[in-house]
Amino acid sequence: MRQISLVAFLQAQNCTTIPAAWRHPDGWTNSYSPEYYQHIGRVLEEGKFDMGFFDDRLAMPDMYMGDHAHTVEHGIRCVKMDPVTCMTVMALATKHLGLGATMSTTYFNPFQVARLFQTVDLMTHGRAAWNIVTSVNDNEARNWGWDGVLAHDYRYDRADEFMEIVRGHWDSWDDDAVLYDKVNMKFADPNKIRRLDYKGKYYQSRGPFTVPRSPQGNPVLIQAGSSGRGMKFGSRWGEVIFTAWHDIELARKQYKAMKDDCASFGRNPDHFKLCNLFYPMTAETRMEAEDKAAFYKTLPNEVDQLSLLSEALNYDFAQKGIDEPFTDEELEGISGMQAMRDRVVKTAGIKNPTPRDFMRVTGRGRMDDPWVGTGKEIADMMEEYFSTFACDGFVVGPTWLPGSFEDFVKFVVPELQKRGIYRKEYPGTTLRETLGLPKPTIGEWKTQAAAE
Amino acid sequence: MRQISLVAFLQAQNCTTIPAAWRHPDGWTNSYSPEYYQHIGRVLEEGKFDMGFFDDRLAMPDMYMGDHAHTVEHGIRCVKMDPVTCMTVMALATKHLGLGATMSTTYFNPFQVARLFQTVDLMTHGRAAWNIVTSVNDNEARNWGWDGVLAHDYRYDRADEFMEIVRGHWDSWDDDAVLYDKVNMKFADPNKIRRLDYKGKYYQSRGPFTVPRSPQGNPVLIQAGSSGRGMKFGSRWGEVIFTAWHDIELARKQYKAMKDDCASFGRNPDHFKLCNLFYPMTAETRMEAEDKAAFYKTLPNEVDQLSLLSEALNYDFAQKGIDEPFTDEELEGISGMQAMRDRVVKTAGIKNPTPRDFMRVTGRGRMDDPWVGTGKEIADMMEEYFSTFACDGFVVGPTWLPGSFEDFVKFVVPELQKRGIYRKEYPGTTLRETLGLPKPTIGEWKTQAAAE
Repeated sequence: MRQISLVAFLQAQNCTTIPAAWRHPDGWTNSYSPEYYQHIGRVLEEGKFDMGFFDDRLAMPDMYMGDHAHTVEHGIRCVKMDPVTCMTVMALATKHLGLGATMSTTYFNPFQVARLFQTVDLMTHGRAAWNIVTSVNDNEARNWGWDGVLAHDYRYDRADEFMEIVRGHWDSWDDDAVLYDKVNMKFADPNKIRRLDYKGKYYQSRGPFTVPRSPQGNPVLIQAGSSGRGMKFGSRWGEVIFTAWHDIELARKQYKAMKDDCASFGRNPDHFKLCNLFYPMTAETRMEAEDKAAFYKTLPNEVDQLSLLSEALNYDFAQKGIDEPFTDEELEGISGMQAMRDRVVKTAGIKNPTPRDFMRVTGRGRMDDPWVGTGKEIADMMEEYFSTFACDGFVVGPTWLPGSFEDFVKFVVPELQKRGIYRKEYPGTTLRETLGLPKPTIGEWKTQAAAE
Repeated sequence: MRQISLVAFLQAQNCTTIPAAWRHPDGWTNSYSPEYYQHIGRVLEEGKFDMGFFDDRLAMPDMYMGDHAHTVEHGIRCVKMDPVTCMTVMALATKHLGLGATMSTTYFNPFQVARLFQTVDLMTHGRAAWNIVTSVNDNEARNWGWDGVLAHDYRYDRADEFMEIVRGHWDSWDDDAVLYDKVNMKFADPNKIRRLDYKGKYYQSRGPFTVPRSPQGNPVLIQAGSSGRGMKFGSRWGEVIFTAWHDIELARKQYKAMKDDCASFGRNPDHFKLCNLFYPMTAETRMEAEDKAAFYKTLPNEVDQLSLLSEALNYDFAQKGIDEPFTDEELEGISGMQAMRDRVVKTAGIKNPTPRDFMRVTGRGRMDDPWVGTGKEIADMMEEYFSTFACDGFVVGPTWLPGSFEDFVKFVVPELQKRGIYRKEYPGTTLRETLGLPKPTIGEWKTQAAAE
């Protein structure tokens, strides 16, 4: 029977994606200590999650009003630690849970990314994943010492080369290259380790790569690009795709389109898992769940929303009155997450939205359209998405930590297990085994690209 | 009483600094698994070591004969994993041991390095250190996509700016900036978090930095520059200095010179710990120790030496016959570790050395001048260095793993403890407490630089 995949959406910061998370009375206040991540990891493993993955941003929000005073005062994602370190901490406190982290192809070097994630994969016995992003935000560029971000499609052209280097390096040691033969004094077989010698338009890397293959071959690739060029990129490289559809009809349509697009690259669409984001709010009874949700809605404030919209769209919303419509030129000039802008203008059909329209339609900075109910009710909604092929699994967004994952594991997970659509035990040891993805064969991605 | 510091010299690779290490019959063969690093960490903590630190190279040796076949066959440092991941694995298996890793100012970005190490410092409750290097090797540049290395002094000019950014970011959150005040909805105090806005000749970084201060303020800085400009850099920024003197008279002279140089930057030379590298070979009796050393000497081969010399000096030794002297021009053109070249030409007084002279004088790739004896005899040698101010502590180089550290902890550590010159228990929880270094105050490095 087809099985649901569950992915926890994690942040190496002081809150969840929702800034108000830290304000929750039951939220833990040790978010920059290892104990916090270790505990969350254990909760997720108890719930047999496929994996947790950390997002990242190389800056704190301070585009709104051009300063960080509001950010740190309101705790709006102002702490942003290295996510690979936090994922490693969590991995070492667990045995089966997969762990992923985000790293940007725009700011990092492909040799470095290949080496880092392959090392983490070895140190976790094959439980690592890398979430590929190209980065949208001027603040990140300025921390890095650059003037501003690169153009959208150009970022993805570079990212394609970046991936060719990363996968090329990962493919350069055969599974049985290492001999460790002390009798014949042979550490490894020279015929089974190749130099890459990559020369692209944007990137070069020579090799030989310095890290052997891992039990699962190499880390799992996560991707979330949701605008045209980004979706193409995801279909070519992604193995777990993070989607955020709110409408089940649209989700089914997009699910099919993305699976077809994946197949057009000569890939098996079953090895391309679409996981849709939602925020559960659950309890023993429906009334308790609704009370929890109602209380949670009192925690966010307007500054949370305006600050995060400014970041996502790379535009200072303080330049506009809260009810002042954006002009066509202003909308066109927005260089950040174009899918979010399009959601307001095209999907919601507001030709010249105001900041308040953006706040309402995107729900940015608030608990965005939570699924509220008992474990059974949440499982019903999940089963409907899953069984009608609107997704292969879910990205579970936490509202406060660690409580909302504890609730989910306590109330929802047993319901899913009862129905036979979710595992009771991990099937093996690697993340690929958990996800039902085969170990990649050397060079398969080249054949796939050629098929397109 | 003044106390010895002990630092373990670690590699995230298949061998120690000595390629032959993996060939030792008692060497563990799981060098790319977490269990290997966890075990070594526990051995070092049992021996009350101040810290372990990982070196790094972003390439495997393949300058010799222009190819990696010999490297992987002989196991000459051919695996090179991400050292920060390995240090984190080791840190999470221990409670007190400090852990450091190398990261190059030439290849990484200062914002990234500041964020990464500050995160590790938080995730280890204040036990992290960063070993600053500028990198010497063309192969690393080529993996990174560059044509070759930067000139020696220019690398250090850039590194000074790099450090101003790193320390600037680390200083941008006050110790008490975070409030986590849920009653008044104040996460942090905006007056206690500053933006850096650094614009230098080579680097820029805006901020605000996204990671709070740690229990020890920020990571400890390790440095090993041993040629003129590098020594100046170390005196300005380093807190633990890695030296590799083989002659006690020279060591005393250099010790004094470096402490004076440190003081010239307005720094307290007591907070500048010079730790000298040695390779112990110890056992219950002198005869056993000598047997161990004699056996170990059978493990290295000529290829080990020629390969590592080629890397260190950035020059393919296969271009010369093994007994063919280098010309003056060839010697002048060597762009790698100039101190190593100078050791052969100036210290050993060989005007036009051959490859064999380099092999003999540097001992590169072999067990270089080990200290062989019982625990008491090794402790005598250490005490002489320490008490006559030839060093403040030692970098202990392992010959095979984990055995050589196990021997050291079993035979030498109790001798040092008996004499009252080495701790029996850790004095606190952070690496700075262990090393006897004060928590840095915000901005102190600026005052120090101005004093020079």
